[in-house]
Amino acid sequence: MELDFAIIDALRQERTGYPEVVYCRGKTVDQAESIILDMYAREIPVFATKARPALAKRLCRRIPHASYDECAQTLSIGAIGNEKCGKVAVIAAGTSDLPVALEAVRTAEFFGSKVQLTMDIGVAGIHRLFEHLPEIRTAHVLVAVAGMEGALASVAAGLVSVPVIAVPTSVGYGASFGGLSALLGMLNACSPGVSVVNIDNGFGAGYQANLINRGGVRHAHG
Amino acid sequence: MELDFAIIDALRQERTGYPEVVYCRGKTVDQAESIILDMYAREIPVFATKARPALAKRLCRRIPHASYDECAQTLSIGAIGNEKCGKVAVIAAGTSDLPVALEAVRTAEFFGSKVQLTMDIGVAGIHRLFEHLPEIRTAHVLVAVAGMEGALASVAAGLVSVPVIAVPTSVGYGASFGGLSALLGMLNACSPGVSVVNIDNGFGAGYQANLINRGGVRHAHG
Amino acid sequence: MELDFAIIDALRQERTGYPEVVYCRGKTVDQAESIILDMYAREIPVFATKARPALAKRLCRRIPHASYDECAQTLSIGAIGNEKCGKVAVIAAGTSDLPVALEAVRTAEFFGSKVQLTMDIGVAGIHRLFEHLPEIRTAHVLVAVAGMEGALASVAAGLVSVPVIAVPTSVGYGASFGGLSALLGMLNACSPGVSVVNIDNGFGAGYQANLINRGGVRHAHG
Amino acid sequence: MELDFAIIDALRQERTGYPEVVYCRGKTVDQAESIILDMYAREIPVFATKARPALAKRLCRRIPHASYDECAQTLSIGAIGNEKCGKVAVIAAGTSDLPVALEAVRTAEFFGSKVQLTMDIGVAGIHRLFEHLPEIRTAHVLVAVAGMEGALASVAAGLVSVPVIAVPTSVGYGASFGGLSALLGMLNACSPGVSVVNIDNGFGAGYQANLINRGGVRHAHG
Amino acid sequence: MELDFAIIDALRQERTGYPEVVYCRGKTVDQAESIILDMYAREIPVFATKARPALAKRLCRRIPHASYDECAQTLSIGAIGNEKCGKVAVIAAGTSDLPVALEAVRTAEFFGSKVQLTMDIGVAGIHRLFEHLPEIRTAHVLVAVAGMEGALASVAAGLVSVPVIAVPTSVGYGASFGGLSALLGMLNACSPGVSVVNIDNGFGAGYQANLINRGGVRHAHG
Amino acid sequence: MELDFAIIDALRQERTGYPEVVYCRGKTVDQAESIILDMYAREIPVFATKARPALAKRLCRRIPHASYDECAQTLSIGAIGNEKCGKVAVIAAGTSDLPVALEAVRTAEFFGSKVQLTMDIGVAGIHRLFEHLPEIRTAHVLVAVAGMEGALASVAAGLVSVPVIAVPTSVGYGASFGGLSALLGMLNACSPGVSVVNIDNGFGAGYQANLINRGGVRHAHG
Amino acid sequence: MELDFAIIDALRQERTGYPEVVYCRGKTVDQAESIILDMYAREIPVFATKARPALAKRLCRRIPHASYDECAQTLSIGAIGNEKCGKVAVIAAGTSDLPVALEAVRTAEFFGSKVQLTMDIGVAGIHRLFEHLPEIRTAHVLVAVAGMEGALASVAAGLVSVPVIAVPTSVGYGASFGGLSALLGMLNACSPGVSVVNIDNGFGAGYQANLINRGGVRHAHG
Amino acid sequence: MELDFAIIDALRQERTGYPEVVYCRGKTVDQAESIILDMYAREIPVFATKARPALAKRLCRRIPHASYDECAQTLSIGAIGNEKCGKVAVIAAGTSDLPVALEAVRTAEFFGSKVQLTMDIGVAGIHRLFEHLPEIRTAHVLVAVAGMEGALASVAAGLVSVPVIAVPTSVGYGASFGGLSALLGMLNACSPGVSVVNIDNGFGAGYQANLINRGGVRHAHG
Repeated sequence: MELDFAIIDALRQERTGYPEVVYCRGKTVDQAESIILDMYAREIPVFATKARPALAKRLCRRIPHASYDECAQTLSIGAIGNEKCGKVAVIAAGTSDLPVALEAVRTAEFFGSKVQLTMDIGVAGIHRLFEHLPEIRTAHVLVAVAGMEGALASVAAGLVSVPVIAVPTSVGYGASFGGLSALLGMLNACSPGVSVVNIDNGFGAGYQANLINRGGVRHAHG
Repeated sequence: MELDFAIIDALRQERTGYPEVVYCRGKTVDQAESIILDMYAREIPVFATKARPALAKRLCRRIPHASYDECAQTLSIGAIGNEKCGKVAVIAAGTSDLPVALEAVRTAEFFGSKVQLTMDIGVAGIHRLFEHLPEIRTAHVLVAVAGMEGALASVAAGLVSVPVIAVPTSVGYGASFGGLSALLGMLNACSPGVSVVNIDNGFGAGYQANLINRGGVRHAHG
Repeated sequence: MELDFAIIDALRQERTGYPEVVYCRGKTVDQAESIILDMYAREIPVFATKARPALAKRLCRRIPHASYDECAQTLSIGAIGNEKCGKVAVIAAGTSDLPVALEAVRTAEFFGSKVQLTMDIGVAGIHRLFEHLPEIRTAHVLVAVAGMEGALASVAAGLVSVPVIAVPTSVGYGASFGGLSALLGMLNACSPGVSVVNIDNGFGAGYQANLINRGGVRHAHG
Repeated sequence: MELDFAIIDALRQERTGYPEVVYCRGKTVDQAESIILDMYAREIPVFATKARPALAKRLCRRIPHASYDECAQTLSIGAIGNEKCGKVAVIAAGTSDLPVALEAVRTAEFFGSKVQLTMDIGVAGIHRLFEHLPEIRTAHVLVAVAGMEGALASVAAGLVSVPVIAVPTSVGYGASFGGLSALLGMLNACSPGVSVVNIDNGFGAGYQANLINRGGVRHAHG
Repeated sequence: MELDFAIIDALRQERTGYPEVVYCRGKTVDQAESIILDMYAREIPVFATKARPALAKRLCRRIPHASYDECAQTLSIGAIGNEKCGKVAVIAAGTSDLPVALEAVRTAEFFGSKVQLTMDIGVAGIHRLFEHLPEIRTAHVLVAVAGMEGALASVAAGLVSVPVIAVPTSVGYGASFGGLSALLGMLNACSPGVSVVNIDNGFGAGYQANLINRGGVRHAHG
Repeated sequence: MELDFAIIDALRQERTGYPEVVYCRGKTVDQAESIILDMYAREIPVFATKARPALAKRLCRRIPHASYDECAQTLSIGAIGNEKCGKVAVIAAGTSDLPVALEAVRTAEFFGSKVQLTMDIGVAGIHRLFEHLPEIRTAHVLVAVAGMEGALASVAAGLVSVPVIAVPTSVGYGASFGGLSALLGMLNACSPGVSVVNIDNGFGAGYQANLINRGGVRHAHG
Repeated sequence: MELDFAIIDALRQERTGYPEVVYCRGKTVDQAESIILDMYAREIPVFATKARPALAKRLCRRIPHASYDECAQTLSIGAIGNEKCGKVAVIAAGTSDLPVALEAVRTAEFFGSKVQLTMDIGVAGIHRLFEHLPEIRTAHVLVAVAGMEGALASVAAGLVSVPVIAVPTSVGYGASFGGLSALLGMLNACSPGVSVVNIDNGFGAGYQANLINRGGVRHAHG
Repeated sequence: MELDFAIIDALRQERTGYPEVVYCRGKTVDQAESIILDMYAREIPVFATKARPALAKRLCRRIPHASYDECAQTLSIGAIGNEKCGKVAVIAAGTSDLPVALEAVRTAEFFGSKVQLTMDIGVAGIHRLFEHLPEIRTAHVLVAVAGMEGALASVAAGLVSVPVIAVPTSVGYGASFGGLSALLGMLNACSPGVSVVNIDNGFGAGYQANLINRGGVRHAHG
């Protein structure tokens, strides 16, 4: 099958170790479906983000083992094997950050990491973070998801010895300017050990966290 | 003495309970000196901010009991009496925030509050904040001074039962955009009980904190 | 009942003197309802903001003494006792600022303050402010709500001797940039004694005003 | 004399009623001097803005009746006749706004208006504005100069029956963002009858005010 | 009738020469209707902007001589008498600027000016402006309405001898950022004699233009 | 036929070599239809952008040889002859950029260029660009369409010897700020030979590319 | 000679038809000198931008035929042959735009174009543009340099039949925000046929203009 | 020794595995010196960033084995042991990015990583990147440093299988807005596997890269 609106990067797995991911926003349902079916036909494991229910419904009917998370808006067919690797901890400040946090979870899982999610531990009630700290400290990499002022990233990074990937979310209003406040806050985190992905980019954080998590193991073996 | 470039708001004390403050930036040394001498002659207590050393030198020579803090850039002659009132706690995230924090301290002191300053307790090493918490909790109002992501305000406000006045500072670089990151962070603080003044506005925070601190006492008497 | 998407900060009242508030935006109606019912079951007084009518309808059916203000979008069950404390004055520039002003009113009332609301006294017809000044001056703290250029905060703060909490609103169009003009105006207020909360954050202002109002009384007793 | 870096718009007076003005910033002293001497030689009345002292010194030595205002940074040689026209009132919020206010004064005077300047009547002490109101109300057009939140324009426009030209200044710091706060405030003025010129553009305001002031008279005669 | 959400500024006409204008955005249809009926009952001439068709329908049914312009979204009942005054010229760059231009037209007409509207003479085809120049030059004041880069204001102001009130519009896309490009362009107009109102503020421009137009005449008589 | 809301620039073809283009956004369907029919009646070739399906449907029914591209939202009637000229290459980073890329294609074709479109060759899989490089290098001018970081423009311009017209698109989310990231990226391209048009302005790029492509040929002949 | 801080792109001429250009800002004088001497040694024609006088002095002493333009801050050694090609017209709005305009001139000349420069024809006095139009119309490509509102690009593009490369400059103050106003104005030009380079990027415009100018000729030959 | 302006976070190494770093900007030379000497006295390895030559000179005189890199502005005393760990590759787009790139190098080295630096491989001459690709691919983590449009991060991340930490620099001018263009570009990188630190934050990138690099090894051992 030839697609005239897309060139599937079939060599991506060779080049970077992982297959291409399908970003569905801005594509029609028909376009996204064609791309996914084409990958499926070539036996490339499929991971799609920002997948609307209509697309998921169509695909899940045709491919029964396709798996859709409506809150995260991710759809996967197959997965990357996850032998012998550490854990990714995803922590989120509030209930409203759930969709972004779950996108990070699903992404890291698809690419082979074990993931543990802890919700609603924003700094307004910082004892909640401390209660979960022992568990969080067992992870090899931390993903911190927060909107508003995004302070969770700074605080968490001062308490752990692993890299923190910070995800600003657009949760908030007024002077949060669609996530700008959290983004700037995280970029200016006073704790070292933080790097940042785009606003609401749970996928990017989960992907990077998995790279860090698995990379360690892989290189120690290689 | 008549000044043609300024009208001293001599009735301010009657109207708002406190005399006018002299903001020296944007005024020549001559203009600032004239205004201050005029107020002095009328026996109005003087508090001047952003006072450069050159101005201070001139005035301290003429008025021996004038008091200048070079780091805070504040100059005072006399003060407002401070009988029977609570305490303002000023906390600051880092050493670089010192000038702004001191401006808040000097302001609240001039207008009649007792003030306690705690430096260098930013959230990157959050145990430092916890160590000082018992002492901080004795204050009637808290001023939180921080640059970069400004997370100190959110974290502190979740730990105390008094109003927090947050002062973003221009400490930082790159995407701090001159204090914008801290300002937005503080405006979006996830803890309630925070209100915010302009970037680097230690004066405004100290003034507001004093109003809150003394107001309480005054009203209980009234 | 265990919630997996939220951790209710049940110790908040101990730590900060007041129970947690439920911010409903970004939560599904089901999530918000579960959280509120959980708090209600634990006998924690409930105050919820940005509560849509659908949520209110459901809860008011189950809990008859729940109280909903559709304009303010606040919902309360019970309240904090309000013995012996001063008055909060909420003033607003125009009719369009009503929802934000009412959110401030309901919040301060829930947490125990007496509140007096004065609408439509923007600076375009400044005599309206002067007419209400005697009454406004009886308050212990002032909340000033305004959109467009937000000048009400500066003008009012020059006329009273108590702290002013300024709330910029998104009322306006074009170069108001969703409330940015009022926000910047209030942060740069030329009168001292002003601190600012987020755009449209009536809740934050009402909460802070109540802290200031009650704080005074409580400390005088303590 | 031929200038290769500038084309003097000698027909401007015919086309728009007034000669071209020399804006000196961005020009070398040599360039500005050449342009001014060229106009002088052609007997065109000269008005130059942002003229640095070095340029003024050179020209005043050669042309004794040239007039320089160091604070306003304006230089004039000759003027436009001012028979039979009303008055422009320039009001300014604070002492730091003086250079911009004076630029407006000198401009309107050069082009033929009578001008009255009132300094330091910002809204923080609004009684000062009221004291000068009777005098201000005698003008045919008002120029309101203010930095910080720029509220003077809104307040004044609600009190007079003539057009208000608002000039935001860069006076302020932090979130004034170089005059942006005053600019946005004035563009969003809640009083009708206000239009705005560029930040610190005293010249533009004085020019426009004069057009309005003289226009009325001229047309009544025409 | 007493309104609890609004205070009609009945003294405005005395103070500023013109009655208050009703800005309908942000008000419910019920609120706007009450305010207008209240003014009508007091025999104050009514001018309302941003009036939606639903409001207009209701009012026109009750008050037959009410007049509604659906494109401009203005509604008027009665008008201010227009004896003996000059002409306002409204010029607009493109067809899409029509609603804003018409709002300016209706406003200036209501307050007593004669108005002439010329559409679609943007600078991309500058000969169209030149063709209308003789007619435009007969006006006492010019309103220039344009989106995109807003160059019409600069070009027109270089060709006339009267004040130009520039209205940036939100016409455009991408880097026009909702009218910001036109706003900045007009504030930085290289021709003197331009002052600017808020984005899409046809009302403000028409009001200011009328003040300038009538003011001239009135003062010559006074 | 006379239109009172538009002046068709009938002399444009004489002045600039090409007829006026109809930009439909911000015009009602009736207005756009009238303008197009008027041009058609005068036998001016018509090219309309941002044409919604409703408009296209109406016109295609009346003028059978009108041609509509629903994805590009362009409508054309007739075309400019394309004898003897080079080729324009349009390249686009991702499938979501298709509408903008197609607008560029249809524009350049209408005005007489041969065009070749290559989709989905973003820099994330840079080998895809290299595979198409020989073909791309045969063009006389390159249009590079990309959202997100817009890196395609920089990379491509380093590989070809012809001018690159870069079109940022609003594809992306969060910190892409509606195309601002791609716009700034392209303006700061580290390769020389890039100039940029407005966000999503496929028309502007196609028009400029055609001017460059045909201009070369025309001048060599002239 | 091996440089460890720079890799000279010696193959650039093969790949893109032109040698690499040395951008001196951000390099020490030593670094810039080493790079230039290295290129000179390899007999690559040298063109350097943002070259400070200190660097120029050093190089001109060692390489007598090096040529330096202090106003444009460009330095060249040798040049690209300019047989048989059309003309580039560079037009600039004001005297202050001269350095940027000259950078464009020197760049296009170095790379082989004939260039004609016309200064000080901004739209405030539009007759000056019309006077030069016949001459401007003989060019194959136009570079329009302007600060403030940048309207020159829109106006010029409506009058010529060739591509216009627009260069916004940082000339202006206040709300020009360092050239942002001109940049946005040019990106939103209402005339088609305009593409834009970075603020103050005279080099980029001259380079692009030369590509367009020579490209035409070269392809007609190829 | 007790410092009243700073609290050294002596427990940081226990909590996060690494000692505190001294950020010298915003501290006086005296303050920075005191802090460093205090740490040195406690035998904590010292790493200081943004250290000016004056500070370095003082310290190197007192502590002979202190090591200062003037270009990177880093100063170190001692280091963290670097047994058995992978390699960090730092790549930079241009010579002007050297100070930031070197700061990353020195940081990662201090904390125990082997580092390889490759300069001047920006995407304008992409073959330079390809030439170094085999070597770059041997690293466990990549730091990509670039100003202007920052495209190096996107391109590199599409070619490697390890995490990329992107550092935007303030190299550029005009619409680079102090590094904003590169920052936004990197946050919107179309390749997954990129996370971003603050503008010019070489330290943050080196620190994060080291965490990732060593983390892998440590966990494989643990």
